[in-house]
Amino acid sequence: MNAEIITSGTELLLGEIVDTNSVYIARALRDIGVNLYYKTSVGDNIARTAEALRVALARADVVIVTGGLGPTVDDVTREAVAEATGCGLALDADCLAQIEALMARWGRPLKDNNRRQAYLPAGARAIPNPVGTAPGFILETPQGTVIAVPGVPREMERLMQDTVLPYLKARLGAEQGTIKALVLRTVGLPESWIDEQIDVLMRSANPTVGLAAHLGMVDIRITARAADEATADAMIAAMAAQVTARVGTDAIYGTGTDRLEAVTGALMARAERTVAILESATQGEIARLLCSTPEGASVVTHSLVVDGPDALAATLNLSPAKLTEFGWISEMVAAEAAASLIDTYEGGWGLAVLGSAPDAGDVYGEHPGETYLALGTPSTTRVLHYPYGGSGELARRWIVLRALDVLRREALKRLENA
Amino acid sequence: MNAEIITSGTELLLGEIVDTNSVYIARALRDIGVNLYYKTSVGDNIARTAEALRVALARADVVIVTGGLGPTVDDVTREAVAEATGCGLALDADCLAQIEALMARWGRPLKDNNRRQAYLPAGARAIPNPVGTAPGFILETPQGTVIAVPGVPREMERLMQDTVLPYLKARLGAEQGTIKALVLRTVGLPESWIDEQIDVLMRSANPTVGLAAHLGMVDIRITARAADEATADAMIAAMAAQVTARVGTDAIYGTGTDRLEAVTGALMARAERTVAILESATQGEIARLLCSTPEGASVVTHSLVVDGPDALAATLNLSPAKLTEFGWISEMVAAEAAASLIDTYEGGWGLAVLGSAPDAGDVYGEHPGETYLALGTPSTTRVLHYPYGGSGELARRWIVLRALDVLRREALKRLENA
Repeated sequence: MNAEIITSGTELLLGEIVDTNSVYIARALRDIGVNLYYKTSVGDNIARTAEALRVALARADVVIVTGGLGPTVDDVTREAVAEATGCGLALDADCLAQIEALMARWGRPLKDNNRRQAYLPAGARAIPNPVGTAPGFILETPQGTVIAVPGVPREMERLMQDTVLPYLKARLGAEQGTIKALVLRTVGLPESWIDEQIDVLMRSANPTVGLAAHLGMVDIRITARAADEATADAMIAAMAAQVTARVGTDAIYGTGTDRLEAVTGALMARAERTVAILESATQGEIARLLCSTPEGASVVTHSLVVDGPDALAATLNLSPAKLTEFGWISEMVAAEAAASLIDTYEGGWGLAVLGSAPDAGDVYGEHPGETYLALGTPSTTRVLHYPYGGSGELARRWIVLRALDVLRREALKRLENA
Repeated sequence: MNAEIITSGTELLLGEIVDTNSVYIARALRDIGVNLYYKTSVGDNIARTAEALRVALARADVVIVTGGLGPTVDDVTREAVAEATGCGLALDADCLAQIEALMARWGRPLKDNNRRQAYLPAGARAIPNPVGTAPGFILETPQGTVIAVPGVPREMERLMQDTVLPYLKARLGAEQGTIKALVLRTVGLPESWIDEQIDVLMRSANPTVGLAAHLGMVDIRITARAADEATADAMIAAMAAQVTARVGTDAIYGTGTDRLEAVTGALMARAERTVAILESATQGEIARLLCSTPEGASVVTHSLVVDGPDALAATLNLSPAKLTEFGWISEMVAAEAAASLIDTYEGGWGLAVLGSAPDAGDVYGEHPGETYLALGTPSTTRVLHYPYGGSGELARRWIVLRALDVLRREALKRLENA
């Protein structure tokens, strides 16, 4: 079964409100295994809404319309559905009785425009609305089915749960199934590299595999359609194993809504390791993020922020001569800072992240700066170099994620060797 | 000029993310006077994206596509535009050089899929992307113009500001104008009643007048298109005057994002009146909302919450016999409570809002309960009755708004008579 959503309301086209109704409906359709290929927003205009309905009915089995069911002249869904499907409007006596009862209880006279809400496309079945005055409706036509629900979110949600989803499930019948999704979260790998590794898998029709890049992270989404949840889960698990084999186990830090800082903190706690962190351009954000998680807070022993070579030398008792010789943003100084952190704050790791504050531009600019990241443990010191730095949003975000990831991978290694 | 927006991304159709890109673009188009009649969301599929493009190009002069410009196989916008318009794809040498330079700076090899990003529909003009790798493009064809921008919000916004909006403004040329909107905010009036009053005005083509109902409030939106801002403002002002004459000056409590509690607090402060508030089912929410605004906080002298007849009698020293005779949710007791508030807390008004806690249901349920609201001033006492009460979300919200509105109207009267 293929569905489309049409959201009705001029305010959507003026950018006055964010459309959350269609997000709710899209999720509900996914959960019961209904395909959604298009969503359309249209203003409070009968002709244009009818046109959107005609386009949607030509492509889909079921069209769900939200909004436009109120009592006023700019509530056009009833008329537009009647026009697009060629059904006229007819008075629904039960709807009218309900509206009359409500108005009587509230001591309000029944107006003509209240009465309008009881005129539904001929042949439509009313969907009772226990939390508002506007009834919805389901209209089955040779071109396809139109389902109309109110635009007020609480009313829309109630009608979806009470009537629309049970109706769709019943129609799905034997065909009924589920769509499940798993998101694998990666950090520090270029989207184009991941794409190259799993290109073949991304051509699979079911499960499907898709990529979504965020700032410094790439999500790999696996979506399976199956007759039941267990089958869908098994299909997802098999595909996830193939994806993981191609991108590498340690590249995937979590699933779903896992946060990198929470995963990193938890792994360090399990590995029984702590860390003292010194940062320059990232201004304490690495430590702050780690400390925002319960386990992360227990593994960060010290957080130091320095704003230049003098502060760095004074904080860690480094030789100013060396800083001058190599420059304070250098492999040599980062390694020495990490070692000094271990010496000064005994018992844990030392992480030094020294990034330049570029004169202008950001990651994509002319002067992206650079960053040295050194992680010292009692046995080893690793120094990584990144060709960007500074306090621009993007560079800072990338460096923070890389630092968390370096800690995470080090903790993983300890746990594997334990 | 008529435009459409197409947002590309399977995650939009799975309900995984809320579409804020189209909100940004819709606002930007509105501000420069471009009509937007449809928005469509489509997944990462070449054929379906091409179909959406064909439908849009048949209706609009300009189609703006966001997303699908990344390096991976599920980034389909370039191919879909080529297919829908019949242009092939051609290598853009400048784009390729930029991507090569970026990869070289980052020390990454140039992959085939990086190179894909430099293939644009033949005849398209690249839009440089200073904050990402994916360039956008503008393609003018006999069917209409297609503009593609990335789906990452910060990149989309940058390309819109730097290139797309200047391009559209230049094309608008003499036709260029603006769309401005004013929202008049009303409270306590049924949407159907307002509709009846301004029905004729709502049929106006420019400015347009539309209604949007929220919980207990109805917004009247006036939108004008004109050659310049001053003309649009004048058209809006003239229409606002007509609307106001029909619904009544005092029904409109504010404009734009004005909050009722802030307006009420400010008016009471200007009228130099204070109030002691006693609430039952609304549990202090009326006082809390007023006190959340700077001026409101200065006008509420006391906030009392009672949870039943015994607490009420004890708090205000009322006769238990009277409460038993009339019932504690009654006109008589509400009026006496308001008078007692004035006596007890000298110098201000007394507002008593006594609502039943219904057994079941809410405003639309079988047992909606009832509420008496009494506002006492040294000279008069007004009691209002509402056929709903209780602590359900909707009833509480409606009663709170009505209480604030009663205070607001009383303050207005004082200011008019002063």
